[in-house]
Amino acid sequence: MRDNIFVSELNQTYIEDLEIEIVERKGIGHPDSISDGIAQSVSNALCKMYEEKLGEGNILHHNTDEVQITAGDSDPKFGGGSVRKPIDILLTGRGIHDYVDENGVEYHFPLERVAIKAAKDWLKENIVNLDVELDTVIECKIGRGSGDLVNVFDRESAIPSSNDTSFGVGFAPLSETESLVLATEELFNSKEFTKKYPATGEDIKVMGLREKDKITLTICCGMVDKYVKNPEEYKAACAVLKEEAEKLAPKYTNRDVEVFINTGDNLDSDDEAGYFLTVTGTSAEMGDDGSVGRGNRANGLITPCRPMSMEATSGKNPVNHVGKIYNILASRIAAEIAEKIPEVKQVHIMLLSQIGRPIDNPKAASTQVILEDGCKLEDVKADIEKIIDEGLENITDIAQDVIAGNARTF
Amino acid sequence: MRDNIFVSELNQTYIEDLEIEIVERKGIGHPDSISDGIAQSVSNALCKMYEEKLGEGNILHHNTDEVQITAGDSDPKFGGGSVRKPIDILLTGRGIHDYVDENGVEYHFPLERVAIKAAKDWLKENIVNLDVELDTVIECKIGRGSGDLVNVFDRESAIPSSNDTSFGVGFAPLSETESLVLATEELFNSKEFTKKYPATGEDIKVMGLREKDKITLTICCGMVDKYVKNPEEYKAACAVLKEEAEKLAPKYTNRDVEVFINTGDNLDSDDEAGYFLTVTGTSAEMGDDGSVGRGNRANGLITPCRPMSMEATSGKNPVNHVGKIYNILASRIAAEIAEKIPEVKQVHIMLLSQIGRPIDNPKAASTQVILEDGCKLEDVKADIEKIIDEGLENITDIAQDVIAGNARTF
Amino acid sequence: MRDNIFVSELNQTYIEDLEIEIVERKGIGHPDSISDGIAQSVSNALCKMYEEKLGEGNILHHNTDEVQITAGDSDPKFGGGSVRKPIDILLTGRGIHDYVDENGVEYHFPLERVAIKAAKDWLKENIVNLDVELDTVIECKIGRGSGDLVNVFDRESAIPSSNDTSFGVGFAPLSETESLVLATEELFNSKEFTKKYPATGEDIKVMGLREKDKITLTICCGMVDKYVKNPEEYKAACAVLKEEAEKLAPKYTNRDVEVFINTGDNLDSDDEAGYFLTVTGTSAEMGDDGSVGRGNRANGLITPCRPMSMEATSGKNPVNHVGKIYNILASRIAAEIAEKIPEVKQVHIMLLSQIGRPIDNPKAASTQVILEDGCKLEDVKADIEKIIDEGLENITDIAQDVIAGNARTF
Amino acid sequence: MRDNIFVSELNQTYIEDLEIEIVERKGIGHPDSISDGIAQSVSNALCKMYEEKLGEGNILHHNTDEVQITAGDSDPKFGGGSVRKPIDILLTGRGIHDYVDENGVEYHFPLERVAIKAAKDWLKENIVNLDVELDTVIECKIGRGSGDLVNVFDRESAIPSSNDTSFGVGFAPLSETESLVLATEELFNSKEFTKKYPATGEDIKVMGLREKDKITLTICCGMVDKYVKNPEEYKAACAVLKEEAEKLAPKYTNRDVEVFINTGDNLDSDDEAGYFLTVTGTSAEMGDDGSVGRGNRANGLITPCRPMSMEATSGKNPVNHVGKIYNILASRIAAEIAEKIPEVKQVHIMLLSQIGRPIDNPKAASTQVILEDGCKLEDVKADIEKIIDEGLENITDIAQDVIAGNARTF
Repeated sequence: MRDNIFVSELNQTYIEDLEIEIVERKGIGHPDSISDGIAQSVSNALCKMYEEKLGEGNILHHNTDEVQITAGDSDPKFGGGSVRKPIDILLTGRGIHDYVDENGVEYHFPLERVAIKAAKDWLKENIVNLDVELDTVIECKIGRGSGDLVNVFDRESAIPSSNDTSFGVGFAPLSETESLVLATEELFNSKEFTKKYPATGEDIKVMGLREKDKITLTICCGMVDKYVKNPEEYKAACAVLKEEAEKLAPKYTNRDVEVFINTGDNLDSDDEAGYFLTVTGTSAEMGDDGSVGRGNRANGLITPCRPMSMEATSGKNPVNHVGKIYNILASRIAAEIAEKIPEVKQVHIMLLSQIGRPIDNPKAASTQVILEDGCKLEDVKADIEKIIDEGLENITDIAQDVIAGNARTF
Repeated sequence: MRDNIFVSELNQTYIEDLEIEIVERKGIGHPDSISDGIAQSVSNALCKMYEEKLGEGNILHHNTDEVQITAGDSDPKFGGGSVRKPIDILLTGRGIHDYVDENGVEYHFPLERVAIKAAKDWLKENIVNLDVELDTVIECKIGRGSGDLVNVFDRESAIPSSNDTSFGVGFAPLSETESLVLATEELFNSKEFTKKYPATGEDIKVMGLREKDKITLTICCGMVDKYVKNPEEYKAACAVLKEEAEKLAPKYTNRDVEVFINTGDNLDSDDEAGYFLTVTGTSAEMGDDGSVGRGNRANGLITPCRPMSMEATSGKNPVNHVGKIYNILASRIAAEIAEKIPEVKQVHIMLLSQIGRPIDNPKAASTQVILEDGCKLEDVKADIEKIIDEGLENITDIAQDVIAGNARTF
Repeated sequence: MRDNIFVSELNQTYIEDLEIEIVERKGIGHPDSISDGIAQSVSNALCKMYEEKLGEGNILHHNTDEVQITAGDSDPKFGGGSVRKPIDILLTGRGIHDYVDENGVEYHFPLERVAIKAAKDWLKENIVNLDVELDTVIECKIGRGSGDLVNVFDRESAIPSSNDTSFGVGFAPLSETESLVLATEELFNSKEFTKKYPATGEDIKVMGLREKDKITLTICCGMVDKYVKNPEEYKAACAVLKEEAEKLAPKYTNRDVEVFINTGDNLDSDDEAGYFLTVTGTSAEMGDDGSVGRGNRANGLITPCRPMSMEATSGKNPVNHVGKIYNILASRIAAEIAEKIPEVKQVHIMLLSQIGRPIDNPKAASTQVILEDGCKLEDVKADIEKIIDEGLENITDIAQDVIAGNARTF
Repeated sequence: MRDNIFVSELNQTYIEDLEIEIVERKGIGHPDSISDGIAQSVSNALCKMYEEKLGEGNILHHNTDEVQITAGDSDPKFGGGSVRKPIDILLTGRGIHDYVDENGVEYHFPLERVAIKAAKDWLKENIVNLDVELDTVIECKIGRGSGDLVNVFDRESAIPSSNDTSFGVGFAPLSETESLVLATEELFNSKEFTKKYPATGEDIKVMGLREKDKITLTICCGMVDKYVKNPEEYKAACAVLKEEAEKLAPKYTNRDVEVFINTGDNLDSDDEAGYFLTVTGTSAEMGDDGSVGRGNRANGLITPCRPMSMEATSGKNPVNHVGKIYNILASRIAAEIAEKIPEVKQVHIMLLSQIGRPIDNPKAASTQVILEDGCKLEDVKADIEKIIDEGLENITDIAQDVIAGNARTF
């Protein structure tokens, strides 16, 4: 058992008992989420590129957690408009382009080409009405990794060392409002849903406000113009979203849920100006820029009433960037504690790193719990510590989970 | 008195009684802070440009809260090295380039030139060892504002309407650790300090960790190579920072404070590789990219143990962007409450907007307080409500404070 | 008959009697030619875009005769290598993005998208081993046309006015060396040839040097690595080119022709460094940048012993840009004279424009001819003048020929 | 005496006896000339950078002969307008960033910074009303030189080898029209002239048309708006140019010279639209893009009636790029022959290179002369050959002349 695991009680109102709770999720097609998605996709592709040439587990230094989306210009029309000016997507960050291994073998990696391909593939997969080749211009300025950081990966050691003095946070379980916000966006952006309701663009923002026992979902969704012939069809598409969100709600809460769709619209408008209409399903085509790390946290949500890290998780290297790894791990451990130990009503975890220290041995793993009434900390402390310890023991699994797409980063 | 002001007690451990507290500040020369600083500086310049042509108070729509810094390449050397490849700075966002007023007068604003000038001026003022003209390339892709958003500003009304359904948060007073972290960075980046100790670069990151009554400050500071002739001078410069931080601490806390400087260094190294040495005072010259909204919150700090908004405050328009205005206002109101009402030990404020609603009339102004022992909420409630109400009443002052540089945004 | 047509005798050695003659053609895949091809392709696409929306013949002002190709980086290998960094292609120039017609109807043209599509289509058609989506990044900075130039097209008139005081030149017939150089490149870049010999890349430069009755063809051709497994296959591919060029020569000349292929190679080299090997068939993938107007003149050749205009013909608008139209027309008229009037051994034409003057009425159409022995100018003068006059009469046909791809520009 | 020097008589009408002659010069502030000037300036700076670190004469491989200028946007006004959007200047080409010498010493050159500085310095020196820092954005994409070319410089040899199979051309003396066109532009762009007449911008195009004994100069000059208060002052400024050009003409010709200034103007216009008015003195601020090698040839002129090379001379490396060196040398030798041998009325020179051959030993130095009546070739042949031979003998001087700014390239 690691000796830097601390468990204590959390003296704080249980999340469901707060009078007001706010939760937000920026859907997969929000410009900030697109940036996150591309950043992570590029990192995964670089990892695979390095492993393919250097052998499994040999991932060279990189951080591709900077993607700037500059909005294009478009002319959405009922029945189908056009993109006029493509969306600019700038990939930046660091990576190793050239490498000489211990045997003197030289490697020249096609880093820029791989990065651009990863970005395009992600867009094709996720923003289905975007014509990636004509609606976007993707430029890669991923720089050459600086020497000192690269060395971290050279050290022969089972466990990588922390790249920085930093921290990650996690909590569990999700509150009803959090669960509902997340599930609503995931429903609307599921393949089944968009197949059935193709007018639904991927640029969906769900804001949940809980005032005591009343939850208000304010949903903003860019409709895809070619599937919306006129204002009536637009209103019908909004009505579908409202209905489906209302239908979904009881699975997550017994509270009263009210749903609003595209409240910024001016429904008296005869032309497109009054409606949230898009050609491609994302407002990046016209109005909105995006960048990495400004939207959802590693658990997929923005939760001002909860502990949050400002670290951008997407795009960081999954090997020794504790700002990434500890946020993912803290969320996972918290979820496991909440799931496996019924006495725990709410758990917060903070993992603190120290630069140079092995990542499986943080400076502190600080955990706070709210327990069910009548339950005592000493009854569950050992179980909690064990879950944390095992989580740290297996921390290097996270890299492969991330690369395989099995770890959420935004 | 507005009827949407809610005050209740906060059931939560007082910040100073938490066992662990983490606080971080990215100094003015950190690449993320540079992005913030430029974004805000550009917005201010655009406001002044619009007012100069259209009359006081006439600020056209813009949001310049997207600045991508792509690191350059440099060769720091003891005694003075060189920048090899300039830092790329991409300004994006939206703004009004062309405008026809109600009398049909056409305006063509030199928006790009004004934006670039603002960015350069900010850099010259704040990153003093950066040769802005040769060490940076600043490109402006600020797009043409989309029609529907622009209209918000056209409406004849004393009070602008909210641009979105969003929220802002604030809290007060700062904890000892928070105050110390902020003060340390501000000291090191003060004109007096850098005059006395010119080796101190602006890229300073201060991380404060309080474990019960022990505070650890981990400070990362890029030294300016031309003022550091050799490893000995480097070590001496670090020793100065340590000493000054230790000297400062007692003004903010009686707790035990330990200070670490540049813990990532390898002090056995003979050449520059082992030290955090820079040519310009910022790691943007070589290793680190930056973007807006990924660092300090509107109060200047990153505080995972406190309520935080993910909104990027810098660069947003100060007229109706509630994501900006409400974060600034919430912090101000919280500070005023904490200062004027001694019974309040800790106050959290959340201001909720609704798109289209006048900004002085939020959907809710929700306030929670921890009171001094023996104090009752009803004794202070009216005073608190009054401060909030007045804050909302004068909300439009914030725009001019921001433009004049009197409101912190990062 | 126009009164500004001047015909005189040319007192100069007949081209075939010069002791030395130099002729060069940069093939379709040379970076300069790629720039030309894209520039022209973009102009054609804009013409069609304008006509589609505004009606046939309604072409708005544009000049897209600036395309900068910045070479990428690649790793050619016998058997197939890879592109590491894509080729950057910057489209610049001017065009009309927004237009209000006489009835007040507003048009917002998707100019950037159309331009990028045209560039990509041209590349896909012409550089067949280039993976356009991953091996290139195409950025469009085509600006908004300036007001005064645009007006030229607004004037109601059958005949557009010259955009500038300029000139075009043409000559005919092609000399043997010129014909051979042109035919050689066209053979090697024909679909049939590359189908049969797929190793032949499109980046072919043919330089013809005639010293009295000896012609030396120095041909530089980037081989496509995936069709060349080893140095032997490379040498065999070169041998094919030599043989085919030698086989072609007698169709154009009875002179002695010697052919050299890739004289810069180091054929003793074991690895790729010694050979002109490419992944994509063009050296733009690695070594060579390109821009418009630096290669072939409007007749497809570089001929220092002949009159030449420096004007870049590709990408200029075909309606009133006399720098383009007069070069094409002069070449056409010269060719027609040479073909129809057997007494003319050699003809040079220079068409001078004056800004604002109708394009069918140049300031001067100056023609000089070398006649067959015994022939007198007065015998052919009228016929020559008639051909020139008819050419000017039908000058507006050139625009549609250009757009339809029936007029060579490089 | 080299055995590849050939001298023969030129059977061609003497230039002054041609019925029509056209000559053009794009002044220093024309966008194409700006590109040329920057390209050459960058090459010079790189040469100095390499020599400073590696020792005199040690110039590493580079070619910076690609500069793309994308016009900005401006709002010229009588009395002084403003630039709205800066001019984009893209530096491309190749150069050596990193180098290991024979002793294993590593060099990392600040190539990008040096290139950008050179470009800015050139602009400040030459386009005096341009605010370089705010009216331009200069981006550097100069790539890493490819290995095989670099090796050329590595070979230990007194005389570099030709980089390509290419040629250069030159002729002398300048005709009256050529001399006049060149002198007119040089006068108008002289420091004395612009000091006296500050309204004269650097963007001057002089087109000379000689029809028998009548010369028409059509001069296009962008006026600097802040020195022109109204249409009357504009007309006065044009009148000055006309007068000064007329005053200059008799120094170069006894022919009748007529001068036209800014014939594209609409002098009835009340506002700026009708006039060639600029904020900065160059049309690159608004309408016109530019690139290298599209304007003046190495002797400063565009002369369709003369032999011309298409090679862009500016920016190419001065050590072994025969496309540059041979054009400069051919012009110099021709001038020397014309000056020193009075019997030579006109001389044309063509220098042919062969890849890999020492540059002082071209494949052929072919010279043709028109002699004064009564003079015989054998009387002057030896003198001509001697001048050519000496020119080739001292060919390596050209590199240092170029770097020192003593050799015209455009």
